[in-house]
Amino acid sequence: MPYRAPVSELRFVLDKVAGFDRVAATEAFAEATPETVDAILTEAGRMCDDVLAPLNRKGDQHPAHLENGVVRTSPGFADGFRAIAEGGWIGMSADPAHGGMGLPIALTMAVNEMIGSACLALQLNPLMTQGQIEALEAHASDEIKETYIPKLVSGEWCGTMNLTEPQAGSDVGALRTKAEPNGDGTYAVTGQKIYISWGDNDFAENICHLVLARLPDAAEGTRGISLFMVPKRLPDADGNAGQANSLRVVSLEHKLGLHGSPTAVMEYDGATGWLVGEPHKGMAAMFTMMNNARLGVGVQGLSVAEAALQHAIGYALDRKQGKTRVPDGSILEHADVRRMILGMKAETFAVRALAMECAVALDMAKATGDVAWRARGAFLTPIAKAFGTDTGIKVAGDGIQVHGGMGFVEETGAAQFLRDVRVTAIYEGTNGIQAMDLVGRKLMDGGAAAFALLDEMGATEDAALRAAVDELRDLTEWMVAQDMQDRFAGAVSYLAAFARVLGTHHHLKAAAADPARAHLARFARGRFLPEARAEMAKARSGADELFALSADEIAA
Amino acid sequence: MPYRAPVSELRFVLDKVAGFDRVAATEAFAEATPETVDAILTEAGRMCDDVLAPLNRKGDQHPAHLENGVVRTSPGFADGFRAIAEGGWIGMSADPAHGGMGLPIALTMAVNEMIGSACLALQLNPLMTQGQIEALEAHASDEIKETYIPKLVSGEWCGTMNLTEPQAGSDVGALRTKAEPNGDGTYAVTGQKIYISWGDNDFAENICHLVLARLPDAAEGTRGISLFMVPKRLPDADGNAGQANSLRVVSLEHKLGLHGSPTAVMEYDGATGWLVGEPHKGMAAMFTMMNNARLGVGVQGLSVAEAALQHAIGYALDRKQGKTRVPDGSILEHADVRRMILGMKAETFAVRALAMECAVALDMAKATGDVAWRARGAFLTPIAKAFGTDTGIKVAGDGIQVHGGMGFVEETGAAQFLRDVRVTAIYEGTNGIQAMDLVGRKLMDGGAAAFALLDEMGATEDAALRAAVDELRDLTEWMVAQDMQDRFAGAVSYLAAFARVLGTHHHLKAAAADPARAHLARFARGRFLPEARAEMAKARSGADELFALSADEIAA
Repeated sequence: MPYRAPVSELRFVLDKVAGFDRVAATEAFAEATPETVDAILTEAGRMCDDVLAPLNRKGDQHPAHLENGVVRTSPGFADGFRAIAEGGWIGMSADPAHGGMGLPIALTMAVNEMIGSACLALQLNPLMTQGQIEALEAHASDEIKETYIPKLVSGEWCGTMNLTEPQAGSDVGALRTKAEPNGDGTYAVTGQKIYISWGDNDFAENICHLVLARLPDAAEGTRGISLFMVPKRLPDADGNAGQANSLRVVSLEHKLGLHGSPTAVMEYDGATGWLVGEPHKGMAAMFTMMNNARLGVGVQGLSVAEAALQHAIGYALDRKQGKTRVPDGSILEHADVRRMILGMKAETFAVRALAMECAVALDMAKATGDVAWRARGAFLTPIAKAFGTDTGIKVAGDGIQVHGGMGFVEETGAAQFLRDVRVTAIYEGTNGIQAMDLVGRKLMDGGAAAFALLDEMGATEDAALRAAVDELRDLTEWMVAQDMQDRFAGAVSYLAAFARVLGTHHHLKAAAADPARAHLARFARGRFLPEARAEMAKARSGADELFALSADEIAA
Repeated sequence: MPYRAPVSELRFVLDKVAGFDRVAATEAFAEATPETVDAILTEAGRMCDDVLAPLNRKGDQHPAHLENGVVRTSPGFADGFRAIAEGGWIGMSADPAHGGMGLPIALTMAVNEMIGSACLALQLNPLMTQGQIEALEAHASDEIKETYIPKLVSGEWCGTMNLTEPQAGSDVGALRTKAEPNGDGTYAVTGQKIYISWGDNDFAENICHLVLARLPDAAEGTRGISLFMVPKRLPDADGNAGQANSLRVVSLEHKLGLHGSPTAVMEYDGATGWLVGEPHKGMAAMFTMMNNARLGVGVQGLSVAEAALQHAIGYALDRKQGKTRVPDGSILEHADVRRMILGMKAETFAVRALAMECAVALDMAKATGDVAWRARGAFLTPIAKAFGTDTGIKVAGDGIQVHGGMGFVEETGAAQFLRDVRVTAIYEGTNGIQAMDLVGRKLMDGGAAAFALLDEMGATEDAALRAAVDELRDLTEWMVAQDMQDRFAGAVSYLAAFARVLGTHHHLKAAAADPARAHLARFARGRFLPEARAEMAKARSGADELFALSADEIAA
């Protein structure tokens, strides 16, 4: 079954579950009228169905590759990218002053979801550019903004993020790439960066690398890191892509999935760069980029969950096997296939609702400046990233299982979903790091953002949800009182529990708005709440238990 | 870190947890002395480390392929197979009357575990042959036994299972392959079979296909199926591989993993076959083969879990990143990496203990003829298959996560474990079917086998385990009282809960025998029991909830 963009479902979640009406009611987003939203989702959905979905398998079978130092992208990807750019989908939320549409992040995420379902490997390209635009808007000089953002929005140029080095993965502070002043306001950037998604391509005039590096007088660790714009081609006097810069793609990774997305090792050899933001404040700028990218990656999990769900339903409806409840029924009439499909559906809905609620909070924070909205967006971001991607992986795995033997055969496409989505639990900060962010940084307010959410969810008339919310409140109080190691020991479970309680809340909210959804909501509650309880029990285990054995004893 | 066979761990689990001493004390298995067991595990382990493990990546990178109708196997696989055959590891448990060693299944499973850790794609070959030997021993005529079994044991010939057809997957009864009497005691077998693991190879003189087909007068469904031996080459007067039979490999599947194992579409065109067992009783014979193969596949999950665990520990110990608890520590000193590794270790142990306990029950049933042992083996088999393979998948996934970005890059090998093991949850009966077997057929005794296990586990002094056993007993009573649809609705969760309670029981038993294991046991209990409770809650949901929506409503 070919992918069909779930336009009306997205509309329902935005309107009835995520509270998008509040965003549309702000002055900042007054243009996001129901008619505009409909037009955007419908038009973007059509492009995904017709233009992008056919590229997904091509990218997998014909990976991007390096040819004499130049990246050759998968067949059709250039056309696909052009369609995304011409639709205006890259810069939907960018500032209109630089060619963007100034629309809410929630709409960008809705469109991103559909593009990612259609072709995740290609969607990663504009996602990187979107992150770069946000970082530039927040931190760059006017000159850099004016030079780069319009071309990034139009898709003439593409953006990348360069953080990781071989010895500096999750610990970005260990990076060694250096930037030395050239005396003319520019810097000479030298070093090697790895895991650079879409580090190069053959359809954009220029690739704009945002590179973390150290100035000569920099302190050690993260406080000595600065951010630089290092373009593949230096902008000429007219702002067009000119002379080649001293940088190159050394190699591309051979990956489990996302074959259509070139993951580069980049070499900078005294490449010309421009400082973005203050010296030594690169991490702050990078966090702007990463925080939004984190929600974007959570939405990638959602994208794959939706695509895998549609694929599995299509297969199940077509496949007849064994005696079913109803005469001549498809395998969807077998209890265990039914259980898997309903589970996939319930989980996909929960992720969509969570991602959209997170996006709404970010939009409200931007529109109103309200710190409570900002705190809510910050609190929900790591949950959306980790639960979204874990769910994408789980749903893709269940999708394989629904296919039986056909699930293991590459031709069906079921396995590709799992291969592609697997990295989303790793990049932009592993899901373990998301969980540590949640119990560390995001509970530094003493739990205020968490308790505000819990209070909202606790106002339900559903006794089962209310009881779970009470337990989660107790656990949150316990967490806030622990030292960091004990919090970290239970971080992943705390996040998993919170996500499932939120999921139940969102399902019940949907059922209240549309009684036809009551069945799925009941089913979801019957799974999410027991799972949340198991995670809550595990979350309290503490660090002592983890560190009772030495590393040597574990390895023995 | 290269794979190292966990010989002493296997010895510990056999002796102190799975009750292998009872097997060794029987007259039937009197040869399985401690010295013999040590020699076997040590010798097989050395072969796995030195000869087989280096083949694993080669098979993945150079898949078996079809060349002018002939299967060419991966580089080194022929030598690897020869080492397995010459070590006597194929027919360890086969009847000495036909060249086997007559050793307990538990030892075969221990050796299979190590071979599968070293190279799963190759290990699938002898696993198929082992199943065939068992089916022939139980059902074939003396002439067939004498012709085939010695050559299967020696590895001169290999065996396959041919059940599936495009329209007959999990519903074997829908198969259409026909067998018509030739008048000379042989049959002409005609039809197409798919998913034939190791359907051909270039290192055995003959491939012996056990094929399910219908006689002309056969009833519909499973009661009309007979089993035939259809060799690639017909045995000549001296019993050697002679003239080619009318069968061929049509194509090989392009799979997610197990690239070194050729998965064939087989075409039989009036091929000469011999009836194995009674006419129309092919399913019974096939179940002999499948039941043992199911435990064997559960052990494949264990194989990959152990290999992925070792690989992840090796990576974690080598990798330094970020500030750790101890100065200059590896990432194993980070709480969340520690949590993943301990979880992988706890789960791998639980699967090994379960698989070995299941094998011990099968051995005791064979040695004593006791129906209670037989019932225990039958009850534990679907749990070992499903929990073993689900755990293999989970541990391989966690192993990727421990590697961070490197986990998504194929060169590290972490991703191959996940790709290879994924099919084990599907073949030999999907894990959903295992769960239905458990709550259906395996509770047809009114729960007697389940209650016997629960009574044993309930005798613990550990209050937490005792409480969980009580809840599982209540759930079992509830299950037995339900109709089949309600049982099926909760089948997967019931199996998952039972496996985790068993896992806790086995960990505590290990801790009682070796106090150094108390930490891991406590950690395992703290995870398994909350998870078991969540699954128990889900197991009671019933079929009404699953079928409240129509298939169309779900697809809408």
